[in-house]
Amino acid sequence: MRLIGGMNFLSDTTAPAHPAILDALTHANQGFASSYGADPVSAGVKTQLCEIFETDLEVVFTVSGTASNALALSVLCPPDAMVLCHDEAHIHRDERGAPEFFTRGAKLLPLAGSHAKIAPEALSDALKQWPSDFVHATPPAVLSLSQLNESGCAYTLDELESLIGLAKARDLNIHMDGARFSNALVSLGCTPAEMTWKAGVDILSLGATKNGAMASEAVILFPSARDRLPQLLANQKRAGLMLPKMRYVSAQMAAWLKDDLWLDLARTANAAAKRLSEGLSAVDGAELVHPTHGNEVFIRLEDALAARLREAGAGFYSWPDGSARFVASWCTTDADISALLDAAG
Amino acid sequence: MRLIGGMNFLSDTTAPAHPAILDALTHANQGFASSYGADPVSAGVKTQLCEIFETDLEVVFTVSGTASNALALSVLCPPDAMVLCHDEAHIHRDERGAPEFFTRGAKLLPLAGSHAKIAPEALSDALKQWPSDFVHATPPAVLSLSQLNESGCAYTLDELESLIGLAKARDLNIHMDGARFSNALVSLGCTPAEMTWKAGVDILSLGATKNGAMASEAVILFPSARDRLPQLLANQKRAGLMLPKMRYVSAQMAAWLKDDLWLDLARTANAAAKRLSEGLSAVDGAELVHPTHGNEVFIRLEDALAARLREAGAGFYSWPDGSARFVASWCTTDADISALLDAAG
Amino acid sequence: MRLIGGMNFLSDTTAPAHPAILDALTHANQGFASSYGADPVSAGVKTQLCEIFETDLEVVFTVSGTASNALALSVLCPPDAMVLCHDEAHIHRDERGAPEFFTRGAKLLPLAGSHAKIAPEALSDALKQWPSDFVHATPPAVLSLSQLNESGCAYTLDELESLIGLAKARDLNIHMDGARFSNALVSLGCTPAEMTWKAGVDILSLGATKNGAMASEAVILFPSARDRLPQLLANQKRAGLMLPKMRYVSAQMAAWLKDDLWLDLARTANAAAKRLSEGLSAVDGAELVHPTHGNEVFIRLEDALAARLREAGAGFYSWPDGSARFVASWCTTDADISALLDAAG
Amino acid sequence: MRLIGGMNFLSDTTAPAHPAILDALTHANQGFASSYGADPVSAGVKTQLCEIFETDLEVVFTVSGTASNALALSVLCPPDAMVLCHDEAHIHRDERGAPEFFTRGAKLLPLAGSHAKIAPEALSDALKQWPSDFVHATPPAVLSLSQLNESGCAYTLDELESLIGLAKARDLNIHMDGARFSNALVSLGCTPAEMTWKAGVDILSLGATKNGAMASEAVILFPSARDRLPQLLANQKRAGLMLPKMRYVSAQMAAWLKDDLWLDLARTANAAAKRLSEGLSAVDGAELVHPTHGNEVFIRLEDALAARLREAGAGFYSWPDGSARFVASWCTTDADISALLDAAG
Repeated sequence: MRLIGGMNFLSDTTAPAHPAILDALTHANQGFASSYGADPVSAGVKTQLCEIFETDLEVVFTVSGTASNALALSVLCPPDAMVLCHDEAHIHRDERGAPEFFTRGAKLLPLAGSHAKIAPEALSDALKQWPSDFVHATPPAVLSLSQLNESGCAYTLDELESLIGLAKARDLNIHMDGARFSNALVSLGCTPAEMTWKAGVDILSLGATKNGAMASEAVILFPSARDRLPQLLANQKRAGLMLPKMRYVSAQMAAWLKDDLWLDLARTANAAAKRLSEGLSAVDGAELVHPTHGNEVFIRLEDALAARLREAGAGFYSWPDGSARFVASWCTTDADISALLDAAG
Repeated sequence: MRLIGGMNFLSDTTAPAHPAILDALTHANQGFASSYGADPVSAGVKTQLCEIFETDLEVVFTVSGTASNALALSVLCPPDAMVLCHDEAHIHRDERGAPEFFTRGAKLLPLAGSHAKIAPEALSDALKQWPSDFVHATPPAVLSLSQLNESGCAYTLDELESLIGLAKARDLNIHMDGARFSNALVSLGCTPAEMTWKAGVDILSLGATKNGAMASEAVILFPSARDRLPQLLANQKRAGLMLPKMRYVSAQMAAWLKDDLWLDLARTANAAAKRLSEGLSAVDGAELVHPTHGNEVFIRLEDALAARLREAGAGFYSWPDGSARFVASWCTTDADISALLDAAG
Repeated sequence: MRLIGGMNFLSDTTAPAHPAILDALTHANQGFASSYGADPVSAGVKTQLCEIFETDLEVVFTVSGTASNALALSVLCPPDAMVLCHDEAHIHRDERGAPEFFTRGAKLLPLAGSHAKIAPEALSDALKQWPSDFVHATPPAVLSLSQLNESGCAYTLDELESLIGLAKARDLNIHMDGARFSNALVSLGCTPAEMTWKAGVDILSLGATKNGAMASEAVILFPSARDRLPQLLANQKRAGLMLPKMRYVSAQMAAWLKDDLWLDLARTANAAAKRLSEGLSAVDGAELVHPTHGNEVFIRLEDALAARLREAGAGFYSWPDGSARFVASWCTTDADISALLDAAG
Repeated sequence: MRLIGGMNFLSDTTAPAHPAILDALTHANQGFASSYGADPVSAGVKTQLCEIFETDLEVVFTVSGTASNALALSVLCPPDAMVLCHDEAHIHRDERGAPEFFTRGAKLLPLAGSHAKIAPEALSDALKQWPSDFVHATPPAVLSLSQLNESGCAYTLDELESLIGLAKARDLNIHMDGARFSNALVSLGCTPAEMTWKAGVDILSLGATKNGAMASEAVILFPSARDRLPQLLANQKRAGLMLPKMRYVSAQMAAWLKDDLWLDLARTANAAAKRLSEGLSAVDGAELVHPTHGNEVFIRLEDALAARLREAGAGFYSWPDGSARFVASWCTTDADISALLDAAG
């Protein structure tokens, strides 16, 4: 175990929880409370979310981003239909087929596009190739977008409008994988509503775990999807994800959302990534491969440089595309970045 | 800690977490740690469990008893096979078909027996009726036993031997639902090993949540099932149950197991239930319907008596069989029991 | 046609096809025809069925009773819900979990009742025990009735009314397994409509295979279930059951239904069974265990008698309940029965 | 319904059955026979296939190519693993997700390559991107190749060797979709063994339906896959595909294989397609888009030409890629081709 202050850029999931999260658990640990999400703490978070998203939404809490995505898709995509997503989407690449499991056999169709953003022509072409009403073909039912996406990029509101417009013209449901939603939000500088339901998103997987919580995620049903709540609850139970003492999951999110903590933490992480991205890409032998919109930096490093960084104690992953991935988190400090840049020298 | 609602006997899942659990979270919240269970806290719990169970086991952590049971069955029962369980088993009655989901379509065959214990002749009869090698019939693959069971009773070691002997003679795998394992253990006064792998159990769902944790459960693979670990991990991931920051789940169990806390808490709860059971069944208009082996009391109450208790503020559930269920927990106090008995008086 | 093994009472599935079926195949084998059921032969059978059942139904053709039952249940029962059926129902005992597979994980709840008829109190009790709106419990969604049932008995119209009434009061869908529908129909002497949609049946599995066809079965959607046709077709395709040259399946059914052939064949088989039942149960050492309503006879035979029959060349199965099952078919002759009774003599 | 002799090039599934198939049904319709595939006719076909394929194989009969493919994949690919196939593969595009259903949630990964042949670099790249032992990623388990493929092309033996070599180096299982196996076989002029198990194929879907049968397909397990037979039989039963009177399915295949009928019919169809391909592509306004290896011709037609052909009564489909697809069958005559070419003329 490494202390805060090291050059650990492996993943925001290796970071500890913010102290406010722990305080919230202590606070929630008072006496008896109804089980399975029927407690006042959970109800309070729903109220917070309705205010933050400026609409009358429903929410179900989970404990992993994979669970959130899979549950969301389970109520948006029939077993004999199809989810369209980017070829590098987390739901396609990194969830061991959780969407296929929860939808009971739906297909994920991988689409192309640079910087892990679905190209509109790729979406448009797929929709042409896959009809909705031909009994032999698996019909498209959902468009899933990651915000931040798997290359650390945020779709602009215009890009969302374009893609979602194409999808809605074919009556697809829209899912947003927001494991790093807060990082994208502060990057775009828009409102939560603008980045979701106002853009046509039906269900959002909202993640707090990567940005300061222990294990707290939410599946948010916007008004267009509110009637799917009973099925979502049944699927949550059936998946072993309806925790008996749910208050400890929702309490984390309550603290995370309170007084804009979530946004502050995201700004801290994004700023650290920005400094890392700019500093490191200025070094000889380093080349940025994707724009740095949030808290992730993808950069191609010459072998000598990569070795130098690792020897200095920096932790980062070699990415399948040949780049190195550095992830900043809420607890990344200026000193961490400075140490890395010094080592890159 | 202030305990709201002193006479809350609704469920052990409505109780708060023990302070030691919170302390453990604070302690685990130091710096960076590897994700998805590859952290030293999780490794430490495995060591603890190996010692406690006196064998070389494997463990996977989850966050609900339903998740544990379903994951366990997912590696013990093929999709086209069958789990034998009591008609009132939690896996059959109270998990919205999670076993069917995780096994991808296996059948649960409900068996009869008083006090929620499978009767040996019911098991024996079922095994006669359902062949193992007839392509048209769903073959039995697993025997699942709840310890404590759904009537609050513990199978004796002899009873376990008898049932498991019948099942093993047909090469069935043995699963134990131990959501209230600690309560059964201190009730029988045997060792954890005697109640599990020495009796033939292959996989145990071990629950801490109902006895003092926030959300901490373990699927324990005894040596006979250790080779199922890779599939179990894949299924855990696929189910969204492989938490990114798993250290916070395992830390709870570490604290729970440390210095026999789990046994102490179980003894407290069982003793409270015993006093409640004896006290209340002595009252006119009350009749105990199952022996009180652990922390649950099932008692038939005349309407007037039930009403009197509710008016006094007691919380308990009307059970489907017509009885009232009172559940004591680690935080039930003598005063709570006294208040209840006074109200019954 | 030469009938090898005159005393073959093993199963009506061991019998050959009626000559009219072969003629129909020859007749259908003229030139090109649209694939996948969009051919005029298939359309013609739909017209026949609408007339015979006196209503505006939809029909999908399959090639086995198991396929029909599983497809029917796949559009009547959600994955997280439950089918209520008799403990000895074919869907529960003899289909290797096909209903669980096609429904993607639904539960089958076995109910008691003598002569393989669900007892009204067993149904009523199950409905009390299993709520419809409790997220933790698997809700009942379908009542499945076999007509003839697995003991060779037919529910009377009154019995159907009673059971279906209970089920409909809880908004269950009604499925009828009619693998031997024609045998039940001529036994009751009512109309096809009376035995199905007028009694509340939503979907019928209608089998011709056991009564003279090669492989021809139909899933019939009555008006209450007609809107499920698109999903049924999708499921049929997804299950590999939408045959490219469907005309050869529907042609069999066209011939089978034409000029009451199906009823004539059923009457022949039932009459043979009746004579066998009466004749054999009059023999010393034989005891009828279920009434003989159709073409199946269940009779307990003393060992010596059973041995004598087998030595004489009679083919029949030892049934799990200890009885011997004799099945008559459309091609069972008076001579066959006489030979059997002589051997029993 | 159109008579033989029209210009019906819609699909080989619209063609009638060859007279020998009908004769075989009549011949099989003698007396009683064991159910579910345990009949002597079915056993005889196994013997034929062992001789034809020069090895000790196992066979299971089905009634559609989709069923064969899905069953084959169900025993080759675990639910949490992946099938690699061409982007235009029938299993991916035209089976409504049957492989996903039968595998209970496996993923199909579409690969690129011209003329519907998987490009070796596409396969090689996919294998690099998708590890076999990373718990978060869906591991590749099967390579599925269509022979003929969806562009009417046959892989050469060298091409098979190259692709299968890459796959076997990663321990993948090899499935061949042989819905038009006979057309490919006579096109390559190799032996059945060379095109399958000698090249590394584990399971073959062998189709007779498109080449003269009514509904007769086989799933063939070569020695490397023989141990999967019990699971295949269980899956066949569970899918409603184990027909009670299986003799009528196997009888078709017996006649089809006898005296090289299958090869003769394939040669007829291929020759007709060849003449059509050469004749039509010589016409102004027509451009062949794929080589014509078997009985399918894909050709781009100027609108006026297409209209002229349709007006003359020719039946063909507009293909998603903008071409027109003409399919010849065993019953396509020289006169049919001449009429088409005259109309094009």
